[in-house]
Amino acid sequence: MESRITDTELALLKTIAGPFERHRLQINKLSEADGEIIDWRGQVVDYLVLKTDGIHEEIQEGLYQNPYLIGWMAVTVVMSDLAAVGADPLGLLLSLQLTQNFTADWLDRFQKGVGEACTTYNVSVLGGDTNFADTTAVNTTAVGTIRGARPLMRKPLAPGELLYTTGRLGGGATLAYARLFDPSLSVNYQPVARLDESRVIRKFATTCIDSSDGLFPALSVLKTLNGTGLDIEPPLQQVLSAETVKVYRAAEIPAWFFMAGPHGEYELLFSIPKPSREAFEVACATAGWQPVLLGRVTATPVVRFTTEDTAVVCDPSEVANLFSQAGGDIQRYFGMLMDKQKDWITHKTAIYANEK
Amino acid sequence: MESRITDTELALLKTIAGPFERHRLQINKLSEADGEIIDWRGQVVDYLVLKTDGIHEEIQEGLYQNPYLIGWMAVTVVMSDLAAVGADPLGLLLSLQLTQNFTADWLDRFQKGVGEACTTYNVSVLGGDTNFADTTAVNTTAVGTIRGARPLMRKPLAPGELLYTTGRLGGGATLAYARLFDPSLSVNYQPVARLDESRVIRKFATTCIDSSDGLFPALSVLKTLNGTGLDIEPPLQQVLSAETVKVYRAAEIPAWFFMAGPHGEYELLFSIPKPSREAFEVACATAGWQPVLLGRVTATPVVRFTTEDTAVVCDPSEVANLFSQAGGDIQRYFGMLMDKQKDWITHKTAIYANEK
Repeated sequence: MESRITDTELALLKTIAGPFERHRLQINKLSEADGEIIDWRGQVVDYLVLKTDGIHEEIQEGLYQNPYLIGWMAVTVVMSDLAAVGADPLGLLLSLQLTQNFTADWLDRFQKGVGEACTTYNVSVLGGDTNFADTTAVNTTAVGTIRGARPLMRKPLAPGELLYTTGRLGGGATLAYARLFDPSLSVNYQPVARLDESRVIRKFATTCIDSSDGLFPALSVLKTLNGTGLDIEPPLQQVLSAETVKVYRAAEIPAWFFMAGPHGEYELLFSIPKPSREAFEVACATAGWQPVLLGRVTATPVVRFTTEDTAVVCDPSEVANLFSQAGGDIQRYFGMLMDKQKDWITHKTAIYANEK
Repeated sequence: MESRITDTELALLKTIAGPFERHRLQINKLSEADGEIIDWRGQVVDYLVLKTDGIHEEIQEGLYQNPYLIGWMAVTVVMSDLAAVGADPLGLLLSLQLTQNFTADWLDRFQKGVGEACTTYNVSVLGGDTNFADTTAVNTTAVGTIRGARPLMRKPLAPGELLYTTGRLGGGATLAYARLFDPSLSVNYQPVARLDESRVIRKFATTCIDSSDGLFPALSVLKTLNGTGLDIEPPLQQVLSAETVKVYRAAEIPAWFFMAGPHGEYELLFSIPKPSREAFEVACATAGWQPVLLGRVTATPVVRFTTEDTAVVCDPSEVANLFSQAGGDIQRYFGMLMDKQKDWITHKTAIYANEK
């Protein structure tokens, strides 16, 4: 194992948390204790929320190449989970896995991404750890709190409730398409975890989940936990993000492909009881943002949607697991999406006749 | 990326936390929320303690081969950090990085190691995450609490205090020696994090650090933070663990080699003010264990010790960083240890004359 790192660089790495500002309640400075110690005296907290998530495949498959983006996403993925639960972030712990031939420039840009994300979310890096292996990966653990409110979960979801997202969808799949199928496409991808929106949502919502795995995989989870389905009102091409629309037009592929996962876009997907609709939408407008209404939750556990001029009724898990059914092979996966589309176009009348 | 895993296995993996018992205060079951939610109402906690640590190099270098040991260590390394801070464990989050060709048997044995460690430490797996990459690695984040006590840190350490360990040393290096230099040696290595001992230690100690990186690296950290040194009383060969003594005799290498890191043994290293010595030792005996007295903390930032018949005065950082100075090359590292030993034997009178 030949190393290019000097002693000084190693010391820096051992303390990957080094350049970031400490939390005001953290009593140990860097290396002063075996653990990170938060002064909790006088804290009144209803729920403590924890989440660990890693960025591995996205780096290996070439989806995330820019070290700044890797740093940004390492923070964002777990902040998005805190947002989905309705928690406020306290801090995070970073675990970085580097290859022996990393460069100081790579590390600088990674730390810039982490730092700017932390500033955006007003969150501290509480601690960190660096290891060396044959591949680059990052693992992050977020700690959050809920005070004076109940946590949001993926259940209970009831028929008749309205399902919204915090924004238009498809950004995550758009990045994947550009990186893996058409490198000539320039795609901006730097999602912001919906912590601000969550502060409004948690006052009204019954359930919440983020779209980090894509819309259909999220609907599949909701179906499994609640036995519910969804009637999606707008044709899916109208729900695509601006960045996605560009690729959608250039690539001429169906809109639903951009919502099938496995790489999603960190919007929140949440349900609002019908009587709260107006108050919720007013509260959003007051906070300066507009939610996207997807449709109505149904007692039948199927998803009804229109993609281009095709009306489809499907079991969302049929679409949610295509990537793993393709054995993680992206070409085979794309073929399976195409087959599914052909199947739907051919059978759409039959399906409709069956379900209506 | 060709996969050998079925859909069912993937589902199992997504929920690596699945087979383990939940914490009684965790309100979400598996997959029911984007984060892990702990009911914190009515909790009176003085400090929250967090720690993230990974097992990467130990797997890549072949130190840990048995998946049971990897699972056991994934829990133990962070429990040892909680013990060093004087915290009681609440739970942990597991992040597992697997290669595509992992087997169900590997996973079973890994989970058995995790499960038995959790039972030993009375700690719950709160959540988890599984990713696929070219190498196997595990990252664990521990959450602990301190109630009605102050946390232990690596400072302040004062001259005149007594430095103890929870047990004899060398086990970590013994495993490394056996795996990397003499595979014919059979070594038992399954350290238990010193949480029980910590409950006594935290009533008396001024500072604490674990020996996970080895004794000399720990002394180097204490020196840097406190400007202190240590007079080690017993010759180092008398402080070797039983397992280490076997290899020490067979390999005929100096005792201090087993304490130089980088792979240590998860004992606690802690300081007791002289006036508390008797009360502390009585409390340990009452709790059923006996600490090992290493020596007296000094104002001069050097470590004085005897290894075999050689009396040495050294700056511990001179020894602590040898492995990184060797660029992580184990053969070169061993050569540097040998050079250092020759140097010490040759100059021992001079060093002593200089320092006394």
